[in-house]
Formats: sequence, structure tokens, C-alpha cells
Amino acid sequence: LNHNAFAKAKQRLQNQAKPPGSLGMMEEIGARLAAIKGTIDVHLTNKQIITCAGDHGVVEEGVSAFPAEVTPQMVLNFVGGGAAVNVMGKHAGARVKAADIGVNYDFDPDLPIFHKKVRHGTDNFTKGPAMTREEAVKSIEAGIEIVNELHAQTPVDLLGTGDMGIGNTTPSTAIIAAFSGLSVERLTGRGSGVDDKGLAQKIAVIQKGLDINKPDPKDPLDVLAKVGGLEIGGLAGLVIGAAAKGIPVICDGLISTAGALIACELAPAAKNYLFASHKSVEIGHKYMQDHMGLEPLIDFKFRLGEGTGAAVCMELLDLATRILADIKTFDEVGISTNS
Amino acid sequence: LNHNAFAKAKQRLQNQAKPPGSLGMMEEIGARLAAIKGTIDVHLTNKQIITCAGDHGVVEEGVSAFPAEVTPQMVLNFVGGGAAVNVMGKHAGARVKAADIGVNYDFDPDLPIFHKKVRHGTDNFTKGPAMTREEAVKSIEAGIEIVNELHAQTPVDLLGTGDMGIGNTTPSTAIIAAFSGLSVERLTGRGSGVDDKGLAQKIAVIQKGLDINKPDPKDPLDVLAKVGGLEIGGLAGLVIGAAAKGIPVICDGLISTAGALIACELAPAAKNYLFASHKSVEIGHKYMQDHMGLEPLIDFKFRLGEGTGAAVCMELLDLATRILADIKTFDEVGISTNS
Repeated sequence: LNHNAFAKAKQRLQNQAKPPGSLGMMEEIGARLAAIKGTIDVHLTNKQIITCAGDHGVVEEGVSAFPAEVTPQMVLNFVGGGAAVNVMGKHAGARVKAADIGVNYDFDPDLPIFHKKVRHGTDNFTKGPAMTREEAVKSIEAGIEIVNELHAQTPVDLLGTGDMGIGNTTPSTAIIAAFSGLSVERLTGRGSGVDDKGLAQKIAVIQKGLDINKPDPKDPLDVLAKVGGLEIGGLAGLVIGAAAKGIPVICDGLISTAGALIACELAPAAKNYLFASHKSVEIGHKYMQDHMGLEPLIDFKFRLGEGTGAAVCMELLDLATRILADIKTFDEVGISTNS
Repeated sequence: LNHNAFAKAKQRLQNQAKPPGSLGMMEEIGARLAAIKGTIDVHLTNKQIITCAGDHGVVEEGVSAFPAEVTPQMVLNFVGGGAAVNVMGKHAGARVKAADIGVNYDFDPDLPIFHKKVRHGTDNFTKGPAMTREEAVKSIEAGIEIVNELHAQTPVDLLGTGDMGIGNTTPSTAIIAAFSGLSVERLTGRGSGVDDKGLAQKIAVIQKGLDINKPDPKDPLDVLAKVGGLEIGGLAGLVIGAAAKGIPVICDGLISTAGALIACELAPAAKNYLFASHKSVEIGHKYMQDHMGLEPLIDFKFRLGEGTGAAVCMELLDLATRILADIKTFDEVGISTNS
């Protein structure tokens, strides 16, 4: 981080023709982006959203309102451009690309997605680990490789993370339960919309996964392997890869934030590059953000994923850069500052 | 309001390839805009922000951190394009124009603003009414005329309101105190940044204004005339004028919302066209929104005015229209909806 640019940003914001601090969170974000980019005139031109996809063996326990085959169908929908993240990414001026980290389907190799499949979905974590430690590492490496490939083509100015994976609020909730030690009951939400019976089942399934696998919260790879998911590993890799290249990264909802949490547990400095987008309806999300000390920007009652919350906040981070650079100071416009 | 378009919007949102309701407030806003515009494919092409300016006699009581001459200076800053609302309006794709409703300064008649001066600032409301009832009516008519003139040039798709007037959190707080009956102490904030002594003085000044003038909460014109402001009347007129033409209108912070409150007390149906933008740091704002039953979209700790919060939310309303119209349904993309 560039402390000189941060100080310059703070000073400019203080001298702009407005009451000091009166643009609240936008000012803080602008200053953070200046520190990351090393300039007070930041331009977030190349915005990219990567939606990591994976399947989950635990779906056979009846934890989701949707069937597993929706995962590959939605990946095709992302390619077609008609999904929520496409529409919202377009509005934000961002390119959206899906990544297969662990979908239980063989995509056409010519499909314009990142082909990074580690395996065809995880195992059911109520019966043993979701994946091996080696597979967990590979899933993280997949995310890092995606950032490196994208950034080598055209330098990425802002990265947004998103997820697709039927059942993936279950491993994400298991992850925050493992790290926080809070009760599964307190952390578990309805995901894409299970009823009361489904919610009780989901809580029992997560508890069983934790009891059987005993993930070690001091070992983030152990947590990811035992109760995580392949796309969650990919999402962790995106955050680590972006931070390593100095790219600011906005994480989306429960699943993306589970990935960011794994990333920050592995590499705490990654947090300097991380922005929380929204506060999800999924209750576990708040506990993840608390655990990482991240403050969400918006609270629109989203519970969709895909990168939709990240897309909204890309526009807002862009706005923060213009606020910092383009609002003139009292001196620049010659206005009195006291009576 | 078009109930058929509203029902169609609700149905489409329900059938889109995502868990129903998973885009929360964006879905509600999209459906409301469909009802206002009578179509589910709304395009908010011509976005306009009008920043109404006025001066306040009560400033001589020491209620503001800035001197009164900043009001005309900031109007010139808006014309120059370097103010916060210009930068943020530009980001939202909105045109920004200032309106002189009651600034204590004679602008060049060729200055590209709306020239609608009712008088050179209000009187000090601790010594009698801020203005006459006739002047209050004229200030509202000024706002209505502005909408009519703008809309006659090019139909306005979305209007944002904003304010400029040194000292104007004082009359705005007096207005919500008059309508709500809540204590002045509870409703008063620091405006552009008074210290503890200034805050105590501001509370005493507002209380004195209410005690001396006894505004009648059943008579919104009486409230506006006795403890209001000229730009606040203009802001009320913008809301009434927009609602009359079927134009959705986003109101900004404490002062814009004071105007919207006067508008809705005079013409309750105007509320159907009204959107709250942000939750201001100014505590009285929350009570205004509660009084009108409006839910703010963002909470960025803004306390600037000018239309800056409205500008941010213009982008978000625009996004809501694309979410409604452009995200495809499960049928359109051929995805399973149950197992």
C-alpha cells in the first residue's frame, strides 16, 4: 500500500468544497483505492467479475431448494449473457466470465469459460472430507491462475468475485462455523429458499459434517478440504491472486466471502485489497464480515450470489474514485471557508 | 399507477432464473418503476438533478459552520461543474442544474440556472415568520414551473432533488419538529459541522422559532412559511410537479426530504412517485422518512446535500430497471426449477 497516496487522498478530501467527511464511506473507499493504486486519480477501467462454479456431494442430503443439475445450466446461462450477474455486470461496465473449478458436468472445451476443473464436484461431507488436501490446494491455485491469465492479457483494475454451485451455502456456513466456533444454528440461513424442515435438515447436516471431519480452524486448508467446496477454493485463489498483483477485489455474498475468509486466513495481508460489497440475507455472512473486520457497503436484502452484489459495488467504487479526483477544492474554486 | 404493469413486473421477477426475491430491494424498486411508467421495460434515459438554492435569515443566529456567502458561491460552483453533485450526477448519467429560489445575491441573468427567485433569503424565524404565506406558495410554484419547463423541452424520465443553502438544516429540522411533535433536541444534528456549543445554540434557535411562530402541522403552507425556507418550498414544488407529470423522483437528504414532506402533506398521492435515496447522518432525516413511510436505499454516512445521495440512487434505480427487463426467466433459458 502506498501511504503517500493515502495521505494525499485524505488531504484532498478534507479540502474539497464540501463539509469535511460529508461523503462518508465514499471518502474512505476513495482513500483506500488511492493507497492500493498509488495515485489519487484512480481509473477502474478494466473491471472483471469471475464467477466460480462447483458442485457439492452434500446436496444428496436435501440441503437445497434446487437440483444439482442447475449448476452447469447456470454456467451456460452466464455464457449466454442472460443471468443476473451478466445484466448487473454490464450495468457496472464489467466483463463477466464463469470458471469451472468443480462442476459435475463436462463442458465443451470451446465454451468461453475458464476451464479449471479440479474434479467433478466434492464428496458428501457428512460421510468424510469433501475433498483431499491436494485438491483443496489445486482449487486455490486455479483461482490464482485465473487472475494471472486475465491480468497478463489486459491489466485488471478491479476484480469482483461471484459463485455458482447448488448447495454451496451449506459448506460456506460450515466454514464460518469452523473458524468462529459459533453454533451452526445461529449461522445457518435458508440459502436459495429451503422451508423450515429444510432449514432444520441443513443445520443437522452441517453439524454432522463438522462432527465427523473435525476441521482445524488453525489450518485453513484443512477447513477448505474437509467442509468446503471447489468453487470456494477458487474464490480464495482469486483473492490471493488479486492481492499479489495489487488488484482491489470486491467479494460478493456468503460463498464468495467464505472464499475470501479462507484467503485471509492463509494470507492475512490479502485483506488490504479486499472490499466487502453487500450484507446478505444469509445470516452467516455477517459473521464472516465481523470475523474479517469488513464493513459492507450496501444492504439491499440480496441472497443470490453469482457476483451480483460485487457488480453493484463496482459502480460504487468507481464513483468513489471520481469523488476523490474530480470534486474541486475550496481553493480551486475560490470559496470562503470561514466567516 | 399502472397496476397491470406492476403485476407483470412481479410475475417476471418471480420467474427469472434466480431464487424468487433474491435481489431484494432492487426487485421492489423495479416493480414500482414499472407501475409508474406503465411498462416492464423502463428506460431512465433523461435523468435530471435540480439543486434548489436559498438563503436563511436565521443564519445570523450562528447556526452554521459556514458563512451565508457560500450559498451563491456554491451555485457558481455548480455551474462550473466542479461540485460534488456535478461529479456524482455525471457518474449517474444525469444532468445537473441549479435553481435560485431565494438566494441573497443577484446572479447574472445569463447564468445557466433556473432563475426563480421569490425573494433574497428568508427572514430570521426567531423574530417572526420566515416568509409570508404568499411567498411560500410562490416558492412551491417555482419548483412546479421548473419541472414543467424541463419536461416540455425533453420528457424527464427520472428527477433527483438537491439543495444548497447555508443554514438550511435548521429550518428543515424545525419542519419535522412541527409535523412530528418530537422534541427539537432529539431531531437536531450538526449540519455541515457545528461543535457542541453550536449544536446547543441550534437547538435553542429552532425551539424559539417554533415557540414564537406556532406553525400549524395541519396546514403545511403555514409550516413552510413560518419556519421553512425558499429552496425547501422549491423542493416541495419539484416533487408535486414531478408526481403530476408521472415522473419518478428521488429525494436526497434532510433538506430535500423536508421539501418532499411538505409536498406529501399537501398532496399525499405524490408519495407514489417518491423514492428515498440515502439515510443521512442528520438524525432528523430518519424521522422524516419514518413519518412518510419511506425506506432509504443506501446508508453511506452522507451529510452533504446538493443532490449527492439522489445521484447515487439514480444509478441504482437505473440498475433496477435492467434487472427487471433483462434478466432472463427459467423458461427463456430452459433451466430445471425442481428435482
